[in-house]
Amino acid sequence: MDKAKPGEAAVVLVSGGLDSMVAGGMAREAGYRIFALTIDYNQRHRIELEAAARVAKMLDAERHVVMPLDLTRFGGSALTDDSIAVPGNGVMPGIPVTYVPARNTIFLSLALGWAEAVGATRLAIGVNALDYSGYPDCRPEFIAAFEGMAGVATREGGFKILTPLIDMSKAAIALEAARLGLDAGQTWSCYDPQNGRICGICDSCRLRAKGYAEAGLTDPALA
Amino acid sequence: MDKAKPGEAAVVLVSGGLDSMVAGGMAREAGYRIFALTIDYNQRHRIELEAAARVAKMLDAERHVVMPLDLTRFGGSALTDDSIAVPGNGVMPGIPVTYVPARNTIFLSLALGWAEAVGATRLAIGVNALDYSGYPDCRPEFIAAFEGMAGVATREGGFKILTPLIDMSKAAIALEAARLGLDAGQTWSCYDPQNGRICGICDSCRLRAKGYAEAGLTDPALA
Repeated sequence: MDKAKPGEAAVVLVSGGLDSMVAGGMAREAGYRIFALTIDYNQRHRIELEAAARVAKMLDAERHVVMPLDLTRFGGSALTDDSIAVPGNGVMPGIPVTYVPARNTIFLSLALGWAEAVGATRLAIGVNALDYSGYPDCRPEFIAAFEGMAGVATREGGFKILTPLIDMSKAAIALEAARLGLDAGQTWSCYDPQNGRICGICDSCRLRAKGYAEAGLTDPALA
Repeated sequence: MDKAKPGEAAVVLVSGGLDSMVAGGMAREAGYRIFALTIDYNQRHRIELEAAARVAKMLDAERHVVMPLDLTRFGGSALTDDSIAVPGNGVMPGIPVTYVPARNTIFLSLALGWAEAVGATRLAIGVNALDYSGYPDCRPEFIAAFEGMAGVATREGGFKILTPLIDMSKAAIALEAARLGLDAGQTWSCYDPQNGRICGICDSCRLRAKGYAEAGLTDPALA
């Protein structure tokens, strides 16, 4: 990631998971002032919001906004509609039912609004198009299209989207968290919490476990 | 506007103002099933939400979602920060302080999420690039960029954004409301309500008054 200019700020989408923590840590290392943005979308795994508060602290965020936005009013996803179950049978081809319609579009739009209001020039998001669930709004072509749109949507444009994880494997992300000295034990990735514990079988749990195994590390969240 | 295919649905952004009522009325006339979406962004003129409920009924909306999204947490606009006054000195060159950072990007993103969840193929918005306040996110180039982005953001793409007012004068919009039999007296346009009455001097009041005058009509809201 290119170094920030003095005083330059980034709005970092912080979910409470491993990926956004590492993306934020890389932005901080590059010198950006960090404005952490978390969306409380009434997700099935709202427990991740507690992790997001811990991550915002770890990133030394100047501000952390937790924005309530009740996407269960729209539904259409296992994460926003309790009647749709989270699959536990492995990462399959195609777009899974945990896809939340237009979620990253909505989240980046909110990040753009906050960035324009506070004068931040960068939006950081921990999307990853390698060890991922196949969501359309995690692909590089989506990010490029959003960045182009943001340029004409705003007063002065010039916003760049930082996606430092986009080509990284989950193993590389786990190693990067360790290198940055960020405690992944404070994060939450599971889509389908079971009485406050991870399920171990959703896509997100599987991808994370595979990453730590390939990195030859023990996941600090399981230690 | 092209006619809808049988059963085709549109998510219409309904603010409670004149423009979105007419845009929605044109979509209804074209045969679309109407899903009305209103954002309660804690705007200074939240009184428009009452008008939005009336408009959704007039449009025979199958559903009307009023989504709370507290944009005062971001600030940066006279409409979302009480410490910034709404100007009353006329429509000036440049982007006024009533511009809400990335508002239409955020609203269209939410419309996109709901559309994808319910299978709607169209998003309708009452933007107007003629008698307007100079907001960047009301211009045709923004709409085109958003539509392109939406195509790669979603499962199957194919979303079109309906902007039937984009080249219409405010006078033409006032006439179109009358032609469609929609009661503009039920709408609310003023940015800066004074004890439940319109201020008469904000940009929105001025543009509406100019439109009705040019149309040779009396604004039913003032009758």
